Amino acid sequence: MLSGMPPTRAQNVGIHAVDIYFPRKYVDQVELEKHDGVSQGKYTIGLGQSKMGICDDREDINSICLTVVKSLLEKYGIAYNDIGRLEVGTETIIDKSKSVKSVLMQLFADSGNTDIEGIDTTNACYGGTNAVFNSVNWIESSAWDGRYALVVAADIAVYKSGAARPTGGAGAVALLIGADAPLVFDAGVRATHMEHVYDFYKPDLHSEYPEVDGPLSNSCYIKAVDVTYNRYLDKLSRQEGVENPTMDSVDYFVFHCPYAKLVAKSVGRLGFNDFLRNPDDERFAAFAQFKDLKRENTYTNREVEKAFMEYTKDAFKTKTLPSLLVAKNLGNSYCASVYCGLASLLSETPSSQLQNKRITLFSYGSGLAASMFSLTVRGDTSPIAKILNLSSRLADRTEIPPAEFDAIMNLREQTHNVKDYDPVSPVDERNFFPGTYYLKRVDEKFRRTYERVAAKGPVRSVLNGVNGTNGVNGVHSVNGVNGVKA
Amino acid sequence: MLSGMPPTRAQNVGIHAVDIYFPRKYVDQVELEKHDGVSQGKYTIGLGQSKMGICDDREDINSICLTVVKSLLEKYGIAYNDIGRLEVGTETIIDKSKSVKSVLMQLFADSGNTDIEGIDTTNACYGGTNAVFNSVNWIESSAWDGRYALVVAADIAVYKSGAARPTGGAGAVALLIGADAPLVFDAGVRATHMEHVYDFYKPDLHSEYPEVDGPLSNSCYIKAVDVTYNRYLDKLSRQEGVENPTMDSVDYFVFHCPYAKLVAKSVGRLGFNDFLRNPDDERFAAFAQFKDLKRENTYTNREVEKAFMEYTKDAFKTKTLPSLLVAKNLGNSYCASVYCGLASLLSETPSSQLQNKRITLFSYGSGLAASMFSLTVRGDTSPIAKILNLSSRLADRTEIPPAEFDAIMNLREQTHNVKDYDPVSPVDERNFFPGTYYLKRVDEKFRRTYERVAAKGPVRSVLNGVNGTNGVNGVHSVNGVNGVKA
Repeated sequence: MLSGMPPTRAQNVGIHAVDIYFPRKYVDQVELEKHDGVSQGKYTIGLGQSKMGICDDREDINSICLTVVKSLLEKYGIAYNDIGRLEVGTETIIDKSKSVKSVLMQLFADSGNTDIEGIDTTNACYGGTNAVFNSVNWIESSAWDGRYALVVAADIAVYKSGAARPTGGAGAVALLIGADAPLVFDAGVRATHMEHVYDFYKPDLHSEYPEVDGPLSNSCYIKAVDVTYNRYLDKLSRQEGVENPTMDSVDYFVFHCPYAKLVAKSVGRLGFNDFLRNPDDERFAAFAQFKDLKRENTYTNREVEKAFMEYTKDAFKTKTLPSLLVAKNLGNSYCASVYCGLASLLSETPSSQLQNKRITLFSYGSGLAASMFSLTVRGDTSPIAKILNLSSRLADRTEIPPAEFDAIMNLREQTHNVKDYDPVSPVDERNFFPGTYYLKRVDEKFRRTYERVAAKGPVRSVLNGVNGTNGVNGVHSVNGVNGVKA
Repeated sequence: MLSGMPPTRAQNVGIHAVDIYFPRKYVDQVELEKHDGVSQGKYTIGLGQSKMGICDDREDINSICLTVVKSLLEKYGIAYNDIGRLEVGTETIIDKSKSVKSVLMQLFADSGNTDIEGIDTTNACYGGTNAVFNSVNWIESSAWDGRYALVVAADIAVYKSGAARPTGGAGAVALLIGADAPLVFDAGVRATHMEHVYDFYKPDLHSEYPEVDGPLSNSCYIKAVDVTYNRYLDKLSRQEGVENPTMDSVDYFVFHCPYAKLVAKSVGRLGFNDFLRNPDDERFAAFAQFKDLKRENTYTNREVEKAFMEYTKDAFKTKTLPSLLVAKNLGNSYCASVYCGLASLLSETPSSQLQNKRITLFSYGSGLAASMFSLTVRGDTSPIAKILNLSSRLADRTEIPPAEFDAIMNLREQTHNVKDYDPVSPVDERNFFPGTYYLKRVDEKFRRTYERVAAKGPVRSVLNGVNGTNGVNGVHSVNGVNGVKA
């Protein structure tokens, strides 16, 4: 080799920093049950959900990603020049060609750093995980130049009125990835399952809403848990010499969370798989009647579900419940969801308790793409917990009555994919946290302009969707008006 | 390390196999000039284009990707189980959530291989390059398990009637990437430029057509050539010790090709950059009047353009023209374009002539994302050339009169994003090459079913968009009818 690059790989590649953005507004699921006239507990117990985040017509996929990237870099004091890769995982498509990543490059304009690889990646809720894998691989590759990779996983999850609507939500997570990190990705254990299926998809480009087959999606999710869990355990055994790996080989399980109840069922499913892998183990003596069942015939078997949810009850409480804080209080954020789970765990668990613990994540995107993979905690996570500060931030939100939620959803429907549009929702403290980017205008050529609510302190930034080319001839300069202070 | 993974990276990672698919139908640009009533030479000389590929209502992004993947694996005799990563770069979005990659998983269903990472990646014409980088990185990472990565770069480029329409086209390229390849990616020289700009984008989800600002797009392209070329030369110098790198340091330049004339101009631009890097070099004596120009003020400077196109005339012929065969005869294929260029070069140049030669690629996607990077030929490329066989395949197409082209475009407009639709274009030898997948039906829930025209020999395959979940409960089985033999 003529090069100065080391022939060996970067080591201990993992997560250095995490930030999360969620909308300031939420609707309470108890109130929504009343408003929708459904039976009490349908959303809160049946789905396991408590609150749901809401974006009005001032927020789109660009704005929430701008907010979380700016926020992470500011809070952790990372320079724009320290980023060598930036990739966005999302299924909230408002432009078929132009990536959200390219919009985020506005934040880097002043630094002059445009040598940043990575664009957008899409398959339902799986995009963020693909971006994470790509970032880890880049750092381990010969192309790595020592800088950080930044992954943004974000979505606005909205459904037409009906059974699926209470499973909405919205959020954005940013992850800073580099070598010698406190949260290290386990090497060689990533287990994937991909398949062609129409369980949930978004073929109607005229609508913000997906086509949904809920029961099929649930079955696909459970099947993907089965396949990836068994592959993951086999790789764990081969790669790390873990003998007879089971749930006990893992300290925390973090799941993609369409709604919390499905995650509880999935933990039960891990127990069922442990049983099927070792049916004669004496601790499974009570389940002998399930011994001859085939996995693929049991995705909706209530008896199996009930028995193994009971069996994994304690494991669910200790290994998974700490990761559901955001999901229960925000709802589904698609690509962001599993990383909201990781953020919840890190925010709510003391660093000392996490040391040398293995955290296994299950990421699922309909269509379908799923992976199970893991991290081991090898350093202090308390700076991350302090910055995330999730319980406090979740409590600092504005409750919106269901009727207002309906009105917001109607407004989104009416203004979906319009041009020459000035959003109407107020820019104030009720609607936005300090430091939030919001949509200022969609011009007559669909070009979007953003501004930022004042952050705490003197930070303020105006992002102009039109004059972002830094001097290329032929660009019309249209400046946004001053940002509104919250 | 407990693992059995080597701490060193895979070496000589690069391209083992290439296949290309383009539609059987084309319109001649001379005929189009007459039909459109524009001045003679406007498309053929002004744009440098000869023919343009056309997809009717039987072809969509899924079908052309199915065709090229199936074709590559068959022709090269690669087993489905040999693929460990598959990623699609495209901006032809017909579903906002479900990836083309997930549709391609139907081809792998019989093999049982579902442990295949990678999904779709999007930023205008750049997605394929992002997929290539991700694949190389994967093979060099600790996650690599020895299998190949398969990259699919594909798009259907269509414009509303008017000035941009003759710059359309359609194509799909598949690249098989692995270690110890005949075409090795140069390490550490990838140079990227990313920026926020609205030069070309697709914000109108109701339409298949983009928003286009042609002059701005041209300027952005030239700016991106400048920035990435200078970064690339600097990295070449640092990484490989090349002193005073110039165009002479590279044997072949392959460009993303919106139309051939812009590529000729871009080669001139490389010469202009060589001059600006070493203005006092005696071979640039004739250009002293341009010495004080700033790059950013010359993107549309005709004098500079003319002078340096003349200066690079021979270099263009030897270094770049061989890569324009497909582009001139097919038109723009967006993400596939730069890889159509590489395929052209490999198909039309004897392997012996390519040995130890450096091929530098420039990939550009509006919005914008651009990279310059290179390959060195380290092995026999004749099997690839033999399989590509491009001149012969391009000659084996069907010419369509412009009036029929217009009718096809009208049909695409009327049927864009419809459901419960049976495509009407005939499935016959005039319209499709043997082995082409075509759209059979879009059902009442937008689910798409594909069938395959008989390949030469007994190969035939029916792909069913609905029953592809292999046994997950709740899936309705809807079988397609028999495929039509060509």
